[in-house]
Amino acid sequence: MTVDHPAIKAKEFSHLFSDEALKRKPSPIKTTMAYFQDPSVVFLGAGMPPGELFPLKTLSMEVPKPPFKNGIADSEETMKATIMRNQDELLFASDVPIARALQYGNSRGQKELLEFLKEHTRRFHRIPYEDWDIITTTGSTQGWDASLRIFCNKGDTVLLEGYTYSSSVEAADAQGLNCIPMPMDDNGIMPAKLEDMLENWGSRYPQIPMPKLLYTIPTGQNPTGCTLSDDRKPYIYHLAQKYDMIIIEDEPYYFLQMDKYTPPEQRSTTSPMNHHQFMNSLCRSFLELDVDGRVVRLDSVSKTFAPGCRFGWLVGSKHLLDNYWNLHEVSIQSTCGFAQTILNGLLNRWGQDGYIDWLIGLRHQYTLKRNCCLDICRQYLPWEICTLPAPVAGMFFMILIDATKHPEFHTTFESNCDLLEQHLYNKCVSAGVLVACGSWFRVPDPVPSPKSATAKSNIVTFRGTYAAVCPEKMKLGIQKFGDTLRREFNLS
Amino acid sequence: MTVDHPAIKAKEFSHLFSDEALKRKPSPIKTTMAYFQDPSVVFLGAGMPPGELFPLKTLSMEVPKPPFKNGIADSEETMKATIMRNQDELLFASDVPIARALQYGNSRGQKELLEFLKEHTRRFHRIPYEDWDIITTTGSTQGWDASLRIFCNKGDTVLLEGYTYSSSVEAADAQGLNCIPMPMDDNGIMPAKLEDMLENWGSRYPQIPMPKLLYTIPTGQNPTGCTLSDDRKPYIYHLAQKYDMIIIEDEPYYFLQMDKYTPPEQRSTTSPMNHHQFMNSLCRSFLELDVDGRVVRLDSVSKTFAPGCRFGWLVGSKHLLDNYWNLHEVSIQSTCGFAQTILNGLLNRWGQDGYIDWLIGLRHQYTLKRNCCLDICRQYLPWEICTLPAPVAGMFFMILIDATKHPEFHTTFESNCDLLEQHLYNKCVSAGVLVACGSWFRVPDPVPSPKSATAKSNIVTFRGTYAAVCPEKMKLGIQKFGDTLRREFNLS
Repeated sequence: MTVDHPAIKAKEFSHLFSDEALKRKPSPIKTTMAYFQDPSVVFLGAGMPPGELFPLKTLSMEVPKPPFKNGIADSEETMKATIMRNQDELLFASDVPIARALQYGNSRGQKELLEFLKEHTRRFHRIPYEDWDIITTTGSTQGWDASLRIFCNKGDTVLLEGYTYSSSVEAADAQGLNCIPMPMDDNGIMPAKLEDMLENWGSRYPQIPMPKLLYTIPTGQNPTGCTLSDDRKPYIYHLAQKYDMIIIEDEPYYFLQMDKYTPPEQRSTTSPMNHHQFMNSLCRSFLELDVDGRVVRLDSVSKTFAPGCRFGWLVGSKHLLDNYWNLHEVSIQSTCGFAQTILNGLLNRWGQDGYIDWLIGLRHQYTLKRNCCLDICRQYLPWEICTLPAPVAGMFFMILIDATKHPEFHTTFESNCDLLEQHLYNKCVSAGVLVACGSWFRVPDPVPSPKSATAKSNIVTFRGTYAAVCPEKMKLGIQKFGDTLRREFNLS
Repeated sequence: MTVDHPAIKAKEFSHLFSDEALKRKPSPIKTTMAYFQDPSVVFLGAGMPPGELFPLKTLSMEVPKPPFKNGIADSEETMKATIMRNQDELLFASDVPIARALQYGNSRGQKELLEFLKEHTRRFHRIPYEDWDIITTTGSTQGWDASLRIFCNKGDTVLLEGYTYSSSVEAADAQGLNCIPMPMDDNGIMPAKLEDMLENWGSRYPQIPMPKLLYTIPTGQNPTGCTLSDDRKPYIYHLAQKYDMIIIEDEPYYFLQMDKYTPPEQRSTTSPMNHHQFMNSLCRSFLELDVDGRVVRLDSVSKTFAPGCRFGWLVGSKHLLDNYWNLHEVSIQSTCGFAQTILNGLLNRWGQDGYIDWLIGLRHQYTLKRNCCLDICRQYLPWEICTLPAPVAGMFFMILIDATKHPEFHTTFESNCDLLEQHLYNKCVSAGVLVACGSWFRVPDPVPSPKSATAKSNIVTFRGTYAAVCPEKMKLGIQKFGDTLRREFNLS
């Protein structure tokens, strides 16, 4: 596959860096590492424990084998991969030997794994500028925490979707940043409303500086399950340029995109996608629009492999990523060597095509899960008070409930959606089903207005997941949820 | 082994927490996890990817087998350990199954591993208060970065040994903290001088707040190789009480303690220590003096197993550690699941006694390495200008050179040790040996004084390591270093 390498260079964004990032200087001890592999120099410089004292001689794993003809769930066809301690013992040329994986090393990541991930990135994103790079993280939560530290001083401002991953807000909030919700609908951030907000910033938020970061979960958003339309992205990117913001695109659910939902009676059994169809089915990324080098993408294997890997990577300009490197060297140092050698061993044995086979299998699994969930919802929810935008990506669905239809909304609950929400949540838990309250994910607007991004007046929302729930449990849970709503809303 | 559990409770130190730490609130979504394992509730609350889609069925490793009769280096006796995906398939009862290790989970760490590490901690440290706990880190560098974020606001002050791990200073410095060097000699921090400094803080450092944290690497200190005497610790702890500081004891080299160095002609071959001798040979910890709960100990497997594990743990009061938990949940989330299940599988198969066997083997290995290095130094260094305090722990040795004996010290080098140091460093690299400059590890005193902790006037220092260097390389390197010094100092 040929790759565009236009001669555009990423811009400088040092004016957006935090004091902390600007204060970091290259450490003299790091400069010695240039001599570490130099055969003409006896290296007594850095305190590396000797590899022969690492207590592992081999590491083997039994893993599914592409092309996963019978699907990826508990695939019966497996292969064994064994990683050896030393380079000269390797059974597979592109393995990272244990002695290197477990030694102090480059905070960016092991070169074999970085190469695989770069090629993977090239296949999925046509980045307009030349000097992009990747660096590993211990997951996107850490990638976001690092982004805040790199770009923001206390008192700075970040934009987030009106409902978003609560942990992302907590991280920013504790760092003393202003979190401002962006208007959104079923297709994600609403660019015209965002532009209006940015244009009138001074009058709307007189005490709050203009935002430095725009944080978005474009695909299969948490908690709403909605996906930002591709046709809105250029407008949003343009706003980032106009108002000089960095875009952080957090894409853990990117490869959990699915076929559109159709009710079972209209559903035809489709054969699995081929690679070409799969690649064309995916959303475009902000990376592809990024002529300036102002986008940092957070990628992760948490949803494609497993969250406990604590392994992800950032894509962005070398200029921006160097800051993450400097921060990582005095914080996480690097991602876990076990995760790196295992994932590298797996991915390189599968190859780029095998990994795409896996991702196609994953799409199929999640499509089945989402279909099962929505089929059950169609059957058991009281639709006279509910709506449910059908997700086309991710792990989550959101049920919107018309609070005004509750007989005591204006009396007992004082027309307050949050009070009703809490009441319904408690009733659901007592009835034996747990769904998350929508309000937990709401970014509070420091200057609330009737037109505010997050004031979904008279709507109570709950977030559910179909990711790790089997059909029987799903049916039981949604039944209990529907029954509780019917009881509480006095429906027959 | 019985353990003291006196009814002393740790004190509250909320007045020492940073704004960031105080701002963190328990997240509502986290409260749902109480229902995650509740069979009476269908859990649609959290986005967990299904374990059957994790692409690993088994994970096996070949590891050395206790009691390591022939030593731990490339030990020939090995055993195989296989960790299964699901709990009901486990081949070893206390394994952490892959599906749990790789799922989202408790940021503190997997319970089997925490139990092992707690029992290990009980064996080595008699903690005076009852409510201590441990929490996992991705290594002590991250533990230190987290400690700074938990206790310090911009402009706060931390004390560090006059020479210390440069990365620890860089982390604090970039966060906008005042780093103040503590006076030290060959036996570590000098408590009387430290008391004098604290007593006269206002006149010495009129613009700088009193310190909140006292950071120390007590055992086998990096870069000096010196070890803080046990008899100085109560005095230092008393100062921490008097001036209300938290002590961060960073102990990566704790289990690299060695027998005292004796020249080869006086050396008798000793049989390896038994467990009792080993336990008694070790330094006491600040934990053991900690009647208040004001000590946080940074422990790590980086030097006992391998740095690439990116696995460590903190020991301290539950009250303090809860802050780390809150921070971890919005940053690293947890340590890598591969590291946890592999280390847990290894440690529980070895057992507490087997791990102590390993540590005794490690002591032996490092004693041999240190002896080899010092034997070579005795032979090849120009002792008329050098001294070398023999390390009894750690990976490092420091060579002190009398700058005044250099013919051009007062002329070309303007009586400036740093200029001479840089010159000698360059000459060494050209001659084919790399040792680290002592100045790289110096904590600059913002108010330098002739009596300053770090003003080792007329002494140039270089740090070397014997950790990962074979005897042949060591001999070659030290020869080159000695020859360079002789040439530069015009010695015969």
